[in-house]
Amino acid sequence: MVSDSVKQQLIAIVGHDNYDDSKAGRLVYSYDATPQFQSLPDAVIAPRNTREVAEIVRICNEHRLPIVPRGSGTNLCAGTCPVKGGIVLLFKHMNNILEIDEENLTVTVQPGVITLDLIKAVEAKGLFYPPDPSSMKISTIGGNINENSGGLRGLKYGVTRDYVLALEVVLANGEIIRTGGKLAKDVAGYDFTRLFVGSEGTLGVITEATLKLIPMPETKKTALALYEDLEAAARSVSKIIANKIIPATLEFLDKPTLEVVEDYARIGLPTDVNAVLLMEQDGPPEVVERDMKRMVEICEEEKAIVQIARSEAEADALRTARRSALSALARLKPTTILEDATVPRSELAKMVKAINEIAQKYDVKICTFGHAGDGNLHPTCPTDARDREEMERVEKAFEEIFAKAIELGGTITGEHGVGAMKAPYLEWKLGKAGIEAMKAVKQALDPNGIMNPGKIFAKNERKRVVVTR
Amino acid sequence: MVSDSVKQQLIAIVGHDNYDDSKAGRLVYSYDATPQFQSLPDAVIAPRNTREVAEIVRICNEHRLPIVPRGSGTNLCAGTCPVKGGIVLLFKHMNNILEIDEENLTVTVQPGVITLDLIKAVEAKGLFYPPDPSSMKISTIGGNINENSGGLRGLKYGVTRDYVLALEVVLANGEIIRTGGKLAKDVAGYDFTRLFVGSEGTLGVITEATLKLIPMPETKKTALALYEDLEAAARSVSKIIANKIIPATLEFLDKPTLEVVEDYARIGLPTDVNAVLLMEQDGPPEVVERDMKRMVEICEEEKAIVQIARSEAEADALRTARRSALSALARLKPTTILEDATVPRSELAKMVKAINEIAQKYDVKICTFGHAGDGNLHPTCPTDARDREEMERVEKAFEEIFAKAIELGGTITGEHGVGAMKAPYLEWKLGKAGIEAMKAVKQALDPNGIMNPGKIFAKNERKRVVVTR
Repeated sequence: MVSDSVKQQLIAIVGHDNYDDSKAGRLVYSYDATPQFQSLPDAVIAPRNTREVAEIVRICNEHRLPIVPRGSGTNLCAGTCPVKGGIVLLFKHMNNILEIDEENLTVTVQPGVITLDLIKAVEAKGLFYPPDPSSMKISTIGGNINENSGGLRGLKYGVTRDYVLALEVVLANGEIIRTGGKLAKDVAGYDFTRLFVGSEGTLGVITEATLKLIPMPETKKTALALYEDLEAAARSVSKIIANKIIPATLEFLDKPTLEVVEDYARIGLPTDVNAVLLMEQDGPPEVVERDMKRMVEICEEEKAIVQIARSEAEADALRTARRSALSALARLKPTTILEDATVPRSELAKMVKAINEIAQKYDVKICTFGHAGDGNLHPTCPTDARDREEMERVEKAFEEIFAKAIELGGTITGEHGVGAMKAPYLEWKLGKAGIEAMKAVKQALDPNGIMNPGKIFAKNERKRVVVTR
Repeated sequence: MVSDSVKQQLIAIVGHDNYDDSKAGRLVYSYDATPQFQSLPDAVIAPRNTREVAEIVRICNEHRLPIVPRGSGTNLCAGTCPVKGGIVLLFKHMNNILEIDEENLTVTVQPGVITLDLIKAVEAKGLFYPPDPSSMKISTIGGNINENSGGLRGLKYGVTRDYVLALEVVLANGEIIRTGGKLAKDVAGYDFTRLFVGSEGTLGVITEATLKLIPMPETKKTALALYEDLEAAARSVSKIIANKIIPATLEFLDKPTLEVVEDYARIGLPTDVNAVLLMEQDGPPEVVERDMKRMVEICEEEKAIVQIARSEAEADALRTARRSALSALARLKPTTILEDATVPRSELAKMVKAINEIAQKYDVKICTFGHAGDGNLHPTCPTDARDREEMERVEKAFEEIFAKAIELGGTITGEHGVGAMKAPYLEWKLGKAGIEAMKAVKQALDPNGIMNPGKIFAKNERKRVVVTR
């Protein structure tokens, strides 16, 4: 609850236009892209600069008011759902690209910059920012950093974490700190840059970031390999890497996903196969040519039919097929639950097989696609939250999928984050001692628990939260 | 002080042979590669496995006994000097390469493995572990991880941090936790893997690590560019990067360093030039050929004379020149103080110029070499600790160098760590609020302050500690 006096203090900082506690305004920010989670904030505030953020945080800390920093809310772990109420902090005014430094190959941004806008801005200068979450058309860099977002280019280029060089952060006590710099190397103290990356807004509010850029790859080739045998697709992934080729992209779609995507996007994908690999290589022309030739050979040895895109338009259509998987699947049923179990690359075939068996066991439809090269799968269940009996089966199926991922040396989330949604499962990955150590760090940096509370650490065993409209 | 009862408990864990509190044994581990720091530990213990480490830590925690984990003690920040006494933990028994996983491209090691042994073992399988600190013939992986070591290949390939996928860590409370996995992506909770990398043994004891490998580059070319004009060398670095070439190595040596190295190693280096760049590119032959051609052109535009190594033996001689810089400089005078100021790449010329001016101002000899591509310089001062008046000037000169690095957007340490040596300067980089936040994390994970105390955080303003023999 925001008292009237606190409300007046907050309005004094950001102005009337940037403080909204209307029912309608609060409703808009009561949920994010994660199904089944909704909770009203007390107010929505849009600060205009770091100083304002610091002042807001100081007031919230004094009054034990939760703060939920939010970009575009595209996350899939209920990371920006204000489960404990409080203030949703919007970055719509803090959305500038502050500098592209061509000599140091860096870009400095405010958190509200849209990921794709950043990518386009640096590409115009022949530079490359690799992290490309599927939501990049809408997602913000601030959100990407808080979630340590991955993407389709993760196998070769890494994830958001690998590109964050420096951060400006407002701590829970209202102090502003700066980590890192335009520096390839910096070991002055603990690696706070990377502690904040992926901390889901639970340790502080990120107000500025300097990101590493690399030279734009000269060329790119895209191909699709079609398989009768799903395990042959998984084997191809292992063989490509074993042949010491690290492709820019190595994505997997199973038959159910393929059918849905083709039905949605009408790209002319074959739907009579059991698995598809989308493969891309980028770099100098000679290398791309050679790697792609070898990749095609490997896939053909595994009995795949391979189509190489003959134009950028064709390549784009293939990429769109993969990128639109979630949107396509979301049309099938009222509720779409998309998961993020990740295993060592070598365990990919076992994991895909296990997912199919688990789906059958619980009689639920699960379509699987994802970043095969990273072992990062997105088993996705089109379902209906109103059907409580089915939802229970879905819940159990996913529990078993997480358990299987852990059993295979994997993790409960590769790139979507823990948020409110996976908090109950975190201990499976980290153990009691691991959770306790992380909680100690949280407590140290946010003793009053105002920073995005209810995320990462579960209060209890409750699984998916019931919708509270 | 280790009481007799604690001593008996510790011996019960590791056996008589692995517990040494003799004066001679303690003296051996009273210092590391850092000049001017020496302090006797109470005992030296060599555990044989993680369970023993955990038992030792539990006892030390109970009795508030400091623990200093130590690999080969090659660090240059007094990171393994037992400034508060206590136990030095040796990993001579925990020195096995546990697994090279060719499918997932990982290697799992115990902390005591020598860096070069690891590199050779994976290279035998056509795989590549890029971090190559100059001390790699002696340094251990455990030490590299604790210090987040860099090396000559950092510009293109990053530092140790970028290759650590998973850790086993014994926390101060004796609990054993595991972070990460054989996973390219994992966002289950805070990034504890990277919090421990570079934490200098102050947060826990690393007992196992899984490291990322990449395919071995096919070929490599090495060249030396000789400059009359030091700033032309710095400009060449910027121009190479601006031409969107990221070389595997881009190292800098100034004239004083060059003379000393040639005198030491007799490689046939020209000593009548003012600066030298050692350049390497690796990768597919076509790319190496093309990049090297362009790099040579750029250097020649800046009036350099360029020599390309015609054989691996020649290339190795050039690399040796750079790698032996510290050893060569260390012969000049009784005391060698090697520093690690780092700036954004664009500020390299300014920094080199400032170092020379500062050396002149304080009338001290400073030889500068380092990782030009990373902006990571090692200004090195051959001096004599017994000459107090000169030492004061050296101290002041380095203080000014650090201040200049910070002024240029840099840091007080790029790859050597803070340890005991740079603790008094850390606040210049992080500010009060930054230090307080890091201290809070330290306090949270090590409430009794037993993990390598006296490092990173300075008690007071005291600079270089006086030798206490």
